[in-house]
Amino acid sequence: VTTAARGRRPGSPDTRAAILGAARALFATGGVSGTSVRAIAAKAGVDPALVHHYFGTKDDLFVAALALPVDPREVLGRVAEEGPDGAGERLVRTFLSVWDDPDLQLPLLALARSLLDPSGRELLRDGFLEVVLGPLGDALGIDEPELRMRLVASQVLGLIMMRYLLAAEPLASMPAEGIVAVYGPTLQRYLTGPLPQDVLPR
Amino acid sequence: VTTAARGRRPGSPDTRAAILGAARALFATGGVSGTSVRAIAAKAGVDPALVHHYFGTKDDLFVAALALPVDPREVLGRVAEEGPDGAGERLVRTFLSVWDDPDLQLPLLALARSLLDPSGRELLRDGFLEVVLGPLGDALGIDEPELRMRLVASQVLGLIMMRYLLAAEPLASMPAEGIVAVYGPTLQRYLTGPLPQDVLPR
Repeated sequence: VTTAARGRRPGSPDTRAAILGAARALFATGGVSGTSVRAIAAKAGVDPALVHHYFGTKDDLFVAALALPVDPREVLGRVAEEGPDGAGERLVRTFLSVWDDPDLQLPLLALARSLLDPSGRELLRDGFLEVVLGPLGDALGIDEPELRMRLVASQVLGLIMMRYLLAAEPLASMPAEGIVAVYGPTLQRYLTGPLPQDVLPR
Repeated sequence: VTTAARGRRPGSPDTRAAILGAARALFATGGVSGTSVRAIAAKAGVDPALVHHYFGTKDDLFVAALALPVDPREVLGRVAEEGPDGAGERLVRTFLSVWDDPDLQLPLLALARSLLDPSGRELLRDGFLEVVLGPLGDALGIDEPELRMRLVASQVLGLIMMRYLLAAEPLASMPAEGIVAVYGPTLQRYLTGPLPQDVLPR
């Protein structure tokens, strides 16, 4: 948000809440790509310019609607800064620094549960994978970023399931360094390893 | 079930349905290890011997209660027969031969959805991981079978999420051989690769 906005209150709480509520409802049914800021504004009964003024871009509004304890794009942006070498291990370490934090774990678990819920799957596929993981793949400058980030997502989702949602031992109480040692090389191979060229889509 | 049982009808449909219903309810709340055949029989209003007569062991009853289109223990048993070498690739190939089969996919998706549901998580953790994956780890004769099979489960669960439940492209329509090429080495490393000894539990 611009300097002009900083000087005043960040909008009426009612207006902000109405926009977030409309965004959550429309993102959940139409996904992020299938939902326009204009439609969200109409549902909230406000001018589209006000949506941009309060929340920035549509992607920003999506992340705000998730009500995450941290902005995953910022956290993942730091992983990308050092380039693709060692990014697998850094990604696991960064992921754990957020998920293993007791203050952050409850809201993250609530989000994970809602994304795994049938009604949240559009948000997970069309929102989280595109808005959050998409930019990481681009920032790392890897080939086939879409496929590679989905391979990464397939392992991270399973890790979230086992370690946090199911709390399946011995993964649930394994020290972070053990998780890094096990999953770092997997993510590194997905990010920069060879891909089966002859069966790639397209 | 014994030869004696083969000659007659497999029990009254009402009795079988009552046992399966009682088993599903008790497994879902107490898990497999926390549920006795005696408790299931009591809830169904039958003699425990009848439960064993119709369904075999408690593990057999658990698999019957899942109402799967195939017995996963048989399918996975064939993976174990050839030993740990190449088991990662064979496991992915076997998994896909079942999950990519259009006749089997709908019931499997229904099961996956119910296991991912909060009320099904006890079944997934305490039932599926123990009853189905546990024996595979033992049959393969690998060290740390519990940890290794949970690593395998963490990747397979994420693959199920991405390819089947979310149908996220390009994973959803990637040919089976591509999935084998990408995930086979991951599962092989989880089954037989080095483990971070200094951070292992115990």
